[in-house]
Amino acid sequence: MNQDIRIDIARAKSAAVGQPHGITPAEFDEIEPHIAEAHAILCKERENKAYGFWDLYKDEAAFQSVENAAADFLNRGYENLVILGIGGSALGTTALTTALLPPFYNLMTRRRRKNHPRIFVMDNIDPVTFRTMMRLCSPEKTLYNVISKSGGTAETMSQLMIVVEMIEKKVGAEAMAEHVVVTSNPRSDDAPPSHLHPVADQYKLTEFTVPLNVGGRFSVFSPVGMFPAAMLGMDIDGIREGCAAMDQRCATSDLKENPAYLRAAVQYLMDTAKDKNISVMMPYADSLRDVADWYRQLWAESLGKRWSLDGEEVYTGQTPVKALGATDQHSQIQLYREGPNDKIINILEVRKFDTNLRIPDTLGSIKSLDYLRGSTMNKLMAAELRGTMDALKLSKRPVSRIVLPRINGHTVAQLLYMLEVETAMAGRLYNVNTFDQPGVEEGKQIARRLMGGQG
Amino acid sequence: MNQDIRIDIARAKSAAVGQPHGITPAEFDEIEPHIAEAHAILCKERENKAYGFWDLYKDEAAFQSVENAAADFLNRGYENLVILGIGGSALGTTALTTALLPPFYNLMTRRRRKNHPRIFVMDNIDPVTFRTMMRLCSPEKTLYNVISKSGGTAETMSQLMIVVEMIEKKVGAEAMAEHVVVTSNPRSDDAPPSHLHPVADQYKLTEFTVPLNVGGRFSVFSPVGMFPAAMLGMDIDGIREGCAAMDQRCATSDLKENPAYLRAAVQYLMDTAKDKNISVMMPYADSLRDVADWYRQLWAESLGKRWSLDGEEVYTGQTPVKALGATDQHSQIQLYREGPNDKIINILEVRKFDTNLRIPDTLGSIKSLDYLRGSTMNKLMAAELRGTMDALKLSKRPVSRIVLPRINGHTVAQLLYMLEVETAMAGRLYNVNTFDQPGVEEGKQIARRLMGGQG
Repeated sequence: MNQDIRIDIARAKSAAVGQPHGITPAEFDEIEPHIAEAHAILCKERENKAYGFWDLYKDEAAFQSVENAAADFLNRGYENLVILGIGGSALGTTALTTALLPPFYNLMTRRRRKNHPRIFVMDNIDPVTFRTMMRLCSPEKTLYNVISKSGGTAETMSQLMIVVEMIEKKVGAEAMAEHVVVTSNPRSDDAPPSHLHPVADQYKLTEFTVPLNVGGRFSVFSPVGMFPAAMLGMDIDGIREGCAAMDQRCATSDLKENPAYLRAAVQYLMDTAKDKNISVMMPYADSLRDVADWYRQLWAESLGKRWSLDGEEVYTGQTPVKALGATDQHSQIQLYREGPNDKIINILEVRKFDTNLRIPDTLGSIKSLDYLRGSTMNKLMAAELRGTMDALKLSKRPVSRIVLPRINGHTVAQLLYMLEVETAMAGRLYNVNTFDQPGVEEGKQIARRLMGGQG
Repeated sequence: MNQDIRIDIARAKSAAVGQPHGITPAEFDEIEPHIAEAHAILCKERENKAYGFWDLYKDEAAFQSVENAAADFLNRGYENLVILGIGGSALGTTALTTALLPPFYNLMTRRRRKNHPRIFVMDNIDPVTFRTMMRLCSPEKTLYNVISKSGGTAETMSQLMIVVEMIEKKVGAEAMAEHVVVTSNPRSDDAPPSHLHPVADQYKLTEFTVPLNVGGRFSVFSPVGMFPAAMLGMDIDGIREGCAAMDQRCATSDLKENPAYLRAAVQYLMDTAKDKNISVMMPYADSLRDVADWYRQLWAESLGKRWSLDGEEVYTGQTPVKALGATDQHSQIQLYREGPNDKIINILEVRKFDTNLRIPDTLGSIKSLDYLRGSTMNKLMAAELRGTMDALKLSKRPVSRIVLPRINGHTVAQLLYMLEVETAMAGRLYNVNTFDQPGVEEGKQIARRLMGGQG
């Protein structure tokens, strides 16, 4: 079966939604040389290893270490895997978990989970949530994966300080290595040392590293996302093959062939030429809900920039919004159709769900439900998607669609990889530094001073 | 203890964030007569019972019937409560559940749940999710509450058709009344009949009604939200008192005294005079996450309108966005600070969490963490909130803050009630019909035709 995901931007064109809301053939023509130019720069950056996300899936050593460690830990039968991490250290795992594990996974019996642990991604410092997690996950049966490149992230490190005390008290400090795994910067002379290194030394913890040239939001295919994936029994080979397949499709600068570049061009033109400062991602599948959340960080943090690469003050960046079909038809579609035409709506479609759910011939007294009888929930979902797409078109609202043949490691990896390449290209089109985040420092410093530390 | 929630709009003023991003004293002066005028109309509409959301909390009969039925069903010891509903039939219950039940509630033992059932809000038609819910919730131990005013909602009715078949097969049709409860339109000559009425008659089901003058997105304090609340052991009296307290505060047209009107004025001016077409709601508490989602429907569907009340084509409506502090500091704050200044950011603060979580003196080798030692996660959360507010101010980004003294039925009800009144006032300022949603019909009709039904 062809597993390729497919891009459809027909309804973002002027031919579909008219002017000024759709992109004209001339606008596509104009942007092509910019794409080609940016492609050359991105290829150079990849070659020079300025940025490393493109090649994570090829890192045999990293995958070996992750898979070996996971096999070892799985043998010990943990009931819980708890991620201590925030932002890019958490969002990838949450996206993969929601996409690739069954719904209500943590409620399932151990047998249904095939002996894999439950998963808790602790990406906040709400004291009620954290305390409740501690009650639910007895430390004897729990493996904690702390993820912070620098080991200086206040939220994550405060979580770790609490967890270490609990393990010392309830299991014993000598057992720390059986309960805590570290993911941080590599140990090398070029790398800024991670505060987690001395901790790992002290307790002899298993360590994974994130390459220095990979930022948090581009790290899902590094051990940041892959160790949890392996612990949860995800199809790592399928994930790597999905990355490889998409990498290959993204090798060309030809807009008609490269799905990531085509999407980048559409998103960029929508924002800068069509006044769509909002980009909605609306999957019609519960399992892709958190992919939309992961993309939200990728898109916002990469492109929301004050300064251009030329030092001009530009204040760029579309605001990413997540929505969920069919649910949000009953919440957001009124606005999307009748509010200001200020959005590009990205619809994620899944052609085949893992189950078929028949709508039976019950409630016979209601004649007006005849059209549902004998059909399936699957067909209803597809019809709702189509109905919404058509209704949006009637209102001249541009839509860009991504079609996944089905949901598995291969297709979801294609999707994430494509969105990463799309973001890298978009950063070039906006002419900003895609890979930094200078705007988050000041708030952290103020918080640190308020806590009595140095700013 | 004073339980009043508090509004702080100082950082949305020009004195704080300058011009053109902050609201000037002159702009507040100018809007005051419009508020007074709108207030008079809203009072008249309330008096005439054109819209009923204001007075739901006073409906003694409705609360009696809900509480009696819940007591009766609770005696029978259900393991699961499953809501079949979408949009306004689901979002209120999800908001209350996340706010007022412990985190990871469904994972808790029955004892910790104080014998209340687990809760599943089925607000989508994803076949994988629905089938998995059916596996997890054995029908013998499950109470289903189907919620649809008309009984014609395709998503909800297809769910019900499936559930009814399962109950017939596994428990028996004669036991339907022990497993299905209906919430729909009242039976009266003025009301359009609900398709759920003959179903209720056939199986002799317990029925609750939503007053005709209350739309889905304003229905949380009707049996739509209150029957699930009672089944889950929420403090119904506290909720009603919270509504009453806020109702009283909203009785005046004086902007300085009426928190809902003040918020409406700020949001409206931000959109129409300050080019903030995006309104972010960012609670710094996991428990308020889904209040932001509930508000998203309320704000979008009420104000996203093509036509004004005078028949002019206006295409109004701010796009509501939900975020979560501190988590999204590592995802969205880069954009909020350095991207386009196109947002008003509503921060929800909780002064006192239900637990204090101390950060112990561990990881002694990391000197740079000294500032965290001996502090609490609570203080860290408060510092992060403050740091973000200050950083946003440095970037001249307007912020409007809502402060809850703590989280309980009383304060959360105040919050929801205030946001409803705010929305009603905002609709008047925009001069649109706050209470309809003409834009969602066309997509539904297309979907119905695609399923072989009549459009």
